[in-house]
Amino acid sequence: MLTNDLILRAARGERVERTPVWLMRQAGRILKEYRAVREQAGSFINLVTTPELAAEVTIQPVDILGVDAAILFSDILVVPEAMGLPYVMDEGKGPRFPEVVRSMDDLKRIHVPDVADALHYVPAAIKLVKQDLNGRVPLIGFAGAPWTLFCYMTEGKGSKTFSVARRSLYADPAFATALMDRITDTTIAYLKLQVAAGVDMVQVFDSWAGVLDAHTYRTFVVPGLKRICEAITEVPVTLFAKDAWFATADIAALPCATVGLDWAQDPRWARQVVGPDRTLQGNLDPCVLYADGATIARETARMLDAFGPQRHIANLGHGVYPDIPVDGVRRFIDTVKEHNHRK
Amino acid sequence: MLTNDLILRAARGERVERTPVWLMRQAGRILKEYRAVREQAGSFINLVTTPELAAEVTIQPVDILGVDAAILFSDILVVPEAMGLPYVMDEGKGPRFPEVVRSMDDLKRIHVPDVADALHYVPAAIKLVKQDLNGRVPLIGFAGAPWTLFCYMTEGKGSKTFSVARRSLYADPAFATALMDRITDTTIAYLKLQVAAGVDMVQVFDSWAGVLDAHTYRTFVVPGLKRICEAITEVPVTLFAKDAWFATADIAALPCATVGLDWAQDPRWARQVVGPDRTLQGNLDPCVLYADGATIARETARMLDAFGPQRHIANLGHGVYPDIPVDGVRRFIDTVKEHNHRK
Repeated sequence: MLTNDLILRAARGERVERTPVWLMRQAGRILKEYRAVREQAGSFINLVTTPELAAEVTIQPVDILGVDAAILFSDILVVPEAMGLPYVMDEGKGPRFPEVVRSMDDLKRIHVPDVADALHYVPAAIKLVKQDLNGRVPLIGFAGAPWTLFCYMTEGKGSKTFSVARRSLYADPAFATALMDRITDTTIAYLKLQVAAGVDMVQVFDSWAGVLDAHTYRTFVVPGLKRICEAITEVPVTLFAKDAWFATADIAALPCATVGLDWAQDPRWARQVVGPDRTLQGNLDPCVLYADGATIARETARMLDAFGPQRHIANLGHGVYPDIPVDGVRRFIDTVKEHNHRK
Repeated sequence: MLTNDLILRAARGERVERTPVWLMRQAGRILKEYRAVREQAGSFINLVTTPELAAEVTIQPVDILGVDAAILFSDILVVPEAMGLPYVMDEGKGPRFPEVVRSMDDLKRIHVPDVADALHYVPAAIKLVKQDLNGRVPLIGFAGAPWTLFCYMTEGKGSKTFSVARRSLYADPAFATALMDRITDTTIAYLKLQVAAGVDMVQVFDSWAGVLDAHTYRTFVVPGLKRICEAITEVPVTLFAKDAWFATADIAALPCATVGLDWAQDPRWARQVVGPDRTLQGNLDPCVLYADGATIARETARMLDAFGPQRHIANLGHGVYPDIPVDGVRRFIDTVKEHNHRK
């Protein structure tokens, strides 16, 4: 059914002829073709909620860059929005929630929605993408991890420390647990909706995992991730907890297929911590792609050799930055595709 | 000479009757007495450069909170300023450099200054503090680590990713090394100036260490830290590389007395990585201090037991946040002072 299923086989631990490659945020500002559609959409939120446009930018990197998977163009903040907390996107400043949730009383405004209704535009986009891809490569669905959504919903915007979110873990753990549970329920329903619409694998992004420590992560966050992994059995699940090196072993113990790594997590260290039974994804520093082609090729090859030829999905250690040159991205992808692992 | 030298003995690995305690950013916005002097000073930079005022806020936490050391009130950005790159402090937004250094050509504007001249107000403040303290507790001097200053000097302001700084490591390593060397030379001269004026120990803050990985940290950053540790032999040196768990072993291999830990670095993990011959400093999550007194006491005791009674200097895992209640800070300090380690 799929012409190129490298990434699914790698996720399942099956043998691959070469390492598959995709990029986080590949459907985004690096491509002038994306910027044209973004302009046509008028606003970021309109782009996210219009299935035809979201589908178009989802497929662009497959056509233009030759990656081994498409990832649905969307935003992790559609989930809080569906729960009753709409966000606004301030141009050049990132997302912001005019209202926040910081107490048991605030929780009354937050519900576990009927996602098929509230997020109807997502399965609609997935169906269009699947039609257009026509089996060329798999489609990755995604959601924000409950902790990362918790950060935004309590803090109201991005933060270097997320101290409002963190303080609630100590100052009001009952509230924190209740909000985390509600987000987790919604996330599971949302991922199931994506799977039913046709995504071939899913990734859960815990972008702000790194502001916690092993003890709080284990207490407040891991239980929700466990529920998600146990609920999504139809397709491989990737967990990517950025900067959460202290929780890598806990994450690897969950029933996920793939563990995503940021660039600080050395491949050999990660393999030792994770063990042989999970696929690793990552993890080149995106800043390498600003360098000349020879440097990109050298650093990419160093990464590939450190991971080895099997049980690895090549990617950056974080989303590609919007001002990274497309030529640098191409050089990275081509290097992965052409790399000869010493057998 | 010193009535309370607990912190110096702990740093040198000598036996202490109880764990010493101080807080990063203790001389700051948590105290209303600080805010009064800050208002009197007119601007932050005026407060930093007026020895009488800087000395006054340096001593406040000793009088008010009963910490076991004073830390000089100053800013890490006085060093780039002395090198030819003045900073401005935008109220509520943090520091900003109107000009930045991003190429070999830009380096022409940057020099290794005569620190005794350019930073004359620092030894002046140190002498006033020492007089006023009159041996009650030690005085800690400090500087930003070269990499953290490099981040600000190339980026021009704070950043979540410091991608401008990082890209230069890959795209222009000759420039990066040259700038790092120049910052390191200035930092060594600056710390020697502080030691000559009377500080009893020094701490080097690598606040943005965590945006790198083991390989780049080892290549570009560790050599400068090594030079600093080797140059400052008169007093104990603490290295605090926030979020740089991947470099903890490299740092512990340098001739420093104390390794500072952020809250993600578990005390027992750190002791194993660092070995027995270094003192550990840290590392309670500052957000614990927002909670009720019983929670603060419980979490502080948990931390103290994890570190054990010797070779530990109690602190938070980062600077105290400006809106943390003074009562929470007191409870933390008092819990450390009263803690009975199971012998």
